[in-house]
Amino acid sequence: MLIEAGVSEAELAKEANRIGAKVEAVFSRYLQSSGDGRDRLFDAMRHAGLGGGKRIRPLLTVATGRLFRIDEERCVRAGAAIEAIHVYSLIHDDLPCMDDDDLRRGKLTVHRAYDESTAVLAGDCFHDLAFEIIADAATHEDPFVRSELVIELARASGPQGMAGGQMLDLAAEGQILDMGSITRLQQLKTGALIEFAVEAACIMGRLPPEARTPYRGYARDIGLAFQIADDLLDHAGDEVAAGKRLRKDESAGKATFVSLLGEERARAQCAMLVEQAIEHLQGHGAEADLLRAVARYIEERDR
Amino acid sequence: MLIEAGVSEAELAKEANRIGAKVEAVFSRYLQSSGDGRDRLFDAMRHAGLGGGKRIRPLLTVATGRLFRIDEERCVRAGAAIEAIHVYSLIHDDLPCMDDDDLRRGKLTVHRAYDESTAVLAGDCFHDLAFEIIADAATHEDPFVRSELVIELARASGPQGMAGGQMLDLAAEGQILDMGSITRLQQLKTGALIEFAVEAACIMGRLPPEARTPYRGYARDIGLAFQIADDLLDHAGDEVAAGKRLRKDESAGKATFVSLLGEERARAQCAMLVEQAIEHLQGHGAEADLLRAVARYIEERDR
Repeated sequence: MLIEAGVSEAELAKEANRIGAKVEAVFSRYLQSSGDGRDRLFDAMRHAGLGGGKRIRPLLTVATGRLFRIDEERCVRAGAAIEAIHVYSLIHDDLPCMDDDDLRRGKLTVHRAYDESTAVLAGDCFHDLAFEIIADAATHEDPFVRSELVIELARASGPQGMAGGQMLDLAAEGQILDMGSITRLQQLKTGALIEFAVEAACIMGRLPPEARTPYRGYARDIGLAFQIADDLLDHAGDEVAAGKRLRKDESAGKATFVSLLGEERARAQCAMLVEQAIEHLQGHGAEADLLRAVARYIEERDR
Repeated sequence: MLIEAGVSEAELAKEANRIGAKVEAVFSRYLQSSGDGRDRLFDAMRHAGLGGGKRIRPLLTVATGRLFRIDEERCVRAGAAIEAIHVYSLIHDDLPCMDDDDLRRGKLTVHRAYDESTAVLAGDCFHDLAFEIIADAATHEDPFVRSELVIELARASGPQGMAGGQMLDLAAEGQILDMGSITRLQQLKTGALIEFAVEAACIMGRLPPEARTPYRGYARDIGLAFQIADDLLDHAGDEVAAGKRLRKDESAGKATFVSLLGEERARAQCAMLVEQAIEHLQGHGAEADLLRAVARYIEERDR
């Protein structure tokens, strides 16, 4: 079965920009100045949350929502909540005690542009913002759906998901991981939130768990492909274009998919995962074209 | 109207211990070892979340729940979620870039017992845990109620509440605040979460907002009394008994209720607020005795 991508690269970029602008509009409503000593906190949150980022996670929620004809504004809100978790994690991961990074998305990291205590608080506040957005009636009219979204978001973000993966990453310092360990680490650290971006639309579409299997398969495959592409970018990419410091893992002696597989096999593995992800969507027609285009974009982002 | 406290100090201590144990049981279920590199994270979370703390916030939720005959287990779960936010905030507030404290509840702070990156992550994970607990069907059968609890918890915790107060506190460094500014700061920093501990039971009891006025009044008064008592303790208390470093504000030249009012007037103000808090409960009989006892305990905790 051969499906030609119905969404070109230019159309995908346009969609990503459109969804990204909507996500920023959601953030902006919560980040108004207070006219008191908290203004530095709101400034720092706007610095971190506005004007940048690929917004891959909200794009995935919107694209999956199209399969089930879910109102786009609702998918944007759920996606914005997931992006708020992503933004909080970037602020905290960049801290001196974590990755100690100076640049993020081509701008100074929050603790460099402001200070460390403001960065800790700005991250904490994006964390709250995520739950405030997702639990709101504007995200979904059915409160059962909202409760499930809240619990699954907390799981994807906490020790069973993203934060657990970050801890595995810290624990791996100075150790040589094998493919199984690194796959597990990345499934938690970056995979869990990407998978939830797809799952959130399944929850909003009221799919019973057994009907979610192909979408979970899609999400798992692109989550891993995303990480391999990230490792390839980290290995061979341009720091100015990436807007952040690269080759940190290499200089820290950490194992990556590229260090374990070599560049060529890593690239082949990424391409295979993208094809496999697209195969999970074979029950769908044109309504899945955006999801297919996102998968292809992941493979090509390191070029 | 004269109501004799129907709950003695010893009975209050027993209730506080009983509720505290139930809160720890809720936490423990989420903090099982994973048998991998995340065990250090789960250890750090147990270090911070188990075996200590007055658990005033869950006690308030349970005590308020008695007014509306809400199942105690549900109040314990909502209270545990609020306590999880409190625990996360203590871990992050103790960090070197914030208050840089070595002791908390008589134990080493998380970043001293483990390390700074583990402390950031352990705080972040308690933050997630709060939302996972409160959104669960076991906390309340009505998903509308759960959604309201999630949104209000996120507000009480974020820039409009606790984290906003912490930012005001950071911004106040080197400035001399007046009574109005310090009251506002403390209403956000410690008041918002204490108020939500009472409000949560009102939400679970499905009280319409206009019927919540006396309980909000009670919560606001004891929240402020709690902070004045804390300042008195900080000024004159014993570090070993308190289990943490004291007189930080004084040595940093920060204004407190005690520095502004003097010890005697601060103590009188605290007593007045406690009486005022108890007056808000005059429509209730013996079912409010636990709430009255909590208010009196706050006045006496610095003695």
